[in-house]
Amino acid sequence: MEQDRVRPLALQRKICNAEDAAALIHNGMTIGSGGFTPSGTPKAVPRALAARIEEAHAVGQPFSVRLFTGASTSPDLDGALARVNGVSFRMPYNGDATMRGRINAGDTAYVDLHLSKVASWVRAGFFGKIDVAIIEAAAILEDGGIVPTLAVGNNKTWLDMAEKVIIEVNAWHNPAIHGLHDIWNGDLHPEERLAIPIRRPDDRIGETVFRVDPEKIAAIVLTNEPDLNVSFRDTDESARQIAGHLMEFFRHETKYGCLPPALPPLQSGVGNVANAVMAAFVDSPFENLFAYTEVIQDGMLAMIHSGKMRAVSGSAFSVSSSASEILNRDMASLREKLILRPQEISNNPEVIRRLGCVTMNTMIEADIYGNVNSTRLMGSRVQNGIGGSGDFARSAHVSIFMAPSTAKAGAISSIVPMTAHVDHINQDVQIMVTEQGLADLRGLSARQRARLIIDHCAHPDYRPMLKDYLTRATNSPGGGETPHLLTESLAWHQRFLDTGTMHS
Amino acid sequence: MEQDRVRPLALQRKICNAEDAAALIHNGMTIGSGGFTPSGTPKAVPRALAARIEEAHAVGQPFSVRLFTGASTSPDLDGALARVNGVSFRMPYNGDATMRGRINAGDTAYVDLHLSKVASWVRAGFFGKIDVAIIEAAAILEDGGIVPTLAVGNNKTWLDMAEKVIIEVNAWHNPAIHGLHDIWNGDLHPEERLAIPIRRPDDRIGETVFRVDPEKIAAIVLTNEPDLNVSFRDTDESARQIAGHLMEFFRHETKYGCLPPALPPLQSGVGNVANAVMAAFVDSPFENLFAYTEVIQDGMLAMIHSGKMRAVSGSAFSVSSSASEILNRDMASLREKLILRPQEISNNPEVIRRLGCVTMNTMIEADIYGNVNSTRLMGSRVQNGIGGSGDFARSAHVSIFMAPSTAKAGAISSIVPMTAHVDHINQDVQIMVTEQGLADLRGLSARQRARLIIDHCAHPDYRPMLKDYLTRATNSPGGGETPHLLTESLAWHQRFLDTGTMHS
Repeated sequence: MEQDRVRPLALQRKICNAEDAAALIHNGMTIGSGGFTPSGTPKAVPRALAARIEEAHAVGQPFSVRLFTGASTSPDLDGALARVNGVSFRMPYNGDATMRGRINAGDTAYVDLHLSKVASWVRAGFFGKIDVAIIEAAAILEDGGIVPTLAVGNNKTWLDMAEKVIIEVNAWHNPAIHGLHDIWNGDLHPEERLAIPIRRPDDRIGETVFRVDPEKIAAIVLTNEPDLNVSFRDTDESARQIAGHLMEFFRHETKYGCLPPALPPLQSGVGNVANAVMAAFVDSPFENLFAYTEVIQDGMLAMIHSGKMRAVSGSAFSVSSSASEILNRDMASLREKLILRPQEISNNPEVIRRLGCVTMNTMIEADIYGNVNSTRLMGSRVQNGIGGSGDFARSAHVSIFMAPSTAKAGAISSIVPMTAHVDHINQDVQIMVTEQGLADLRGLSARQRARLIIDHCAHPDYRPMLKDYLTRATNSPGGGETPHLLTESLAWHQRFLDTGTMHS
Repeated sequence: MEQDRVRPLALQRKICNAEDAAALIHNGMTIGSGGFTPSGTPKAVPRALAARIEEAHAVGQPFSVRLFTGASTSPDLDGALARVNGVSFRMPYNGDATMRGRINAGDTAYVDLHLSKVASWVRAGFFGKIDVAIIEAAAILEDGGIVPTLAVGNNKTWLDMAEKVIIEVNAWHNPAIHGLHDIWNGDLHPEERLAIPIRRPDDRIGETVFRVDPEKIAAIVLTNEPDLNVSFRDTDESARQIAGHLMEFFRHETKYGCLPPALPPLQSGVGNVANAVMAAFVDSPFENLFAYTEVIQDGMLAMIHSGKMRAVSGSAFSVSSSASEILNRDMASLREKLILRPQEISNNPEVIRRLGCVTMNTMIEADIYGNVNSTRLMGSRVQNGIGGSGDFARSAHVSIFMAPSTAKAGAISSIVPMTAHVDHINQDVQIMVTEQGLADLRGLSARQRARLIIDHCAHPDYRPMLKDYLTRATNSPGGGETPHLLTESLAWHQRFLDTGTMHS
């Protein structure tokens, strides 16, 4: 097996077990790890590291690491290390519940960043040095080329910048995965940067493998296990209704010439609403679609299978276990229509803007003027992080945000007078959709946006309260372009904290 | 005179007075006008239009127009039309006090947009058709090329999209201005877009003139008057202190290698703080600087004159009357070091990101976690608009926001528990500066940012109140990653509205 997967003889000598590899990591070190979703997350070494940390803590020794990744990872990494309180610093994104608890409790310092910016800031030295890179690979080729698995993320940057490199070579992956990836080396320091030569989502501009100085490779661990994939909830009625409103919007826009018949390249966030939208495309009249996105979900794979979508470019997969099995089995043929890139390229404003992407992201809540909170519950508690939504929404040709109009069985309205946190300013929100309807906010003043959002997106149970707020704010002595009553603007959130419902 | 400035014989026949030109504009029409600052704003035709509107209103006839510009204009345009309540819709930016009153009162619907996005959205039809373009030119050449004046803004787009074109040819401008501008035609509809081939701020990639179908030119009006330039306040001590903190930061960053010795290309917002920063560069050790910015102020011209700055790229000038006279007089020699581009290019995230710009913008207020409000006073009343600050800050290599730590003689703290409006999310704010000091927020968690902003940026009079808020929020049962007390987070603003001071 090692001869197949780790071809260079010199590197075969570095094969060891996970415990020996984890022993290279010491208290206070900074780790640049693979993982953008469960895909691409190293597994055996992080588990062994968590065990090491637990043992150290058991005998009263301090042991924690600084953890940089692509984006979210899996219970093997964030979960295992958070369980033993082994992470002092975490960036740029977390989706793990145990780690989230550590972050909200203040145990772990969390820096939540636009995913496209991480690599250039690390290269510039803004986050200090990286001691160890831990990367998952499908194989190491004769010439030293490292074949990535189902995520690219920031791995190229970790390999470039780390002092030592640990590679998990995971034999679960079909060797045909070689050729899926597009690793571009053109984005160096700012003063040397070239234009990114992508003009279509399926343009390939780089190599199919990572390159690293073999001297830096300190350990290679052989594994054979699938990713710990998350399963998303089944599509519910509200997600189907959101998808229906969006399809109607796209039909209207293409009919009247504001969008081209095949639609611009699509970006879609993660989750069951996003999957429902993709499912709706399968039954739509749209053909020859492309996606230029961050994470590739089941829904986009279904569009590839159905022939609706010609190609998808992203940085990682986030698929169900069953979709993952099919993807791995059919990799040799699917590879032609799928491209994984570094997140610096998949999420780069240059390309998103040039391609004129239509972006679709989910929100926690929006205010009546169109500002969106997608990260902080009741203002204080972080859910996940901004991820790539800011990279895509700001540079989009049309930026869409969507959510069911209520949460917690109606106790929370997704449309509020003022959001308790802002991730996306109204300038970055052209279309808002809930199961109630769609608000096209383009070319509307703040007060016009408010009326439309209340009428089209808010749940009927909350519309009278929202209208009342808007009317009183508009007629108040302060008035103004975006009228607010500051004694009431966050009162809905406080009422939920006090009484368990935003309803009065 | 007309033979010099309007060379084509066929166009000389279209010369008329401002009143006849304004008579082409009717109630309900959409105007795409020049003007990004006072520079480039047409003068005679808007004044004549305001008179026409006033006459119509006097006899009870409705008359208003929809007004699209580059950014702010001058009293000749926004002021004159707002005075007669002649604008039903205004985008994408306003800086005029009279128009601001109309917008805050709800008389004029205002859409406040990222300045880089206007052109592509108008081309896509998101804002309907443009009836009339009104453009200021320095000359119309033999071959029909239209030489812009001291702003480019969206003029190319208005000329492309308008049904009719009115040109004010302003003989005040030195004919040597021909050659200052760089008008690129490569940015078409999204599906045809090319990479923008700018690799250095002084790269010239297009033509020096606008092109328009001569059949569309309906009227040419000859004028001879300077721009109504705003004078900025003299640099005060607090602006000088902000500039001093920034110079220390730049010296530190270049010494430790995080920024290159000549600094990346600089962007600077408008105002007296920005001018003070530029003045500080004149006396700094930095050499061979470049600016890739939106508006070119006196301070940057001083850097050109001193030899510190090699070239400045922008979309418009905003200069004092005296600087304007010098600029006009020495245009033939200065032209080599100055470039004006369409705002779609000057503010394009693709170029800002590629060049790795250091951006410096002013704020109204910031919260303890680093979120910035640069547009809405007490949440409700718009001051100007987001302008290009969002284009630059999000794509910057290092984004800096600055303001004095208090306003209204100490009655307002610029550092508050929560901003009453968000324009720039904390992810887009790496450095915050007040006269009190500089907070380097890179790599810090929310709670760490809060402590640093309070200690380094807040005014000592407000520090105890901010620390008290942070401590109680952190210790509250909710806690969380960005702790807030929602019953108090906007209480400072309400206290100011109620009592005239944020101080308790």
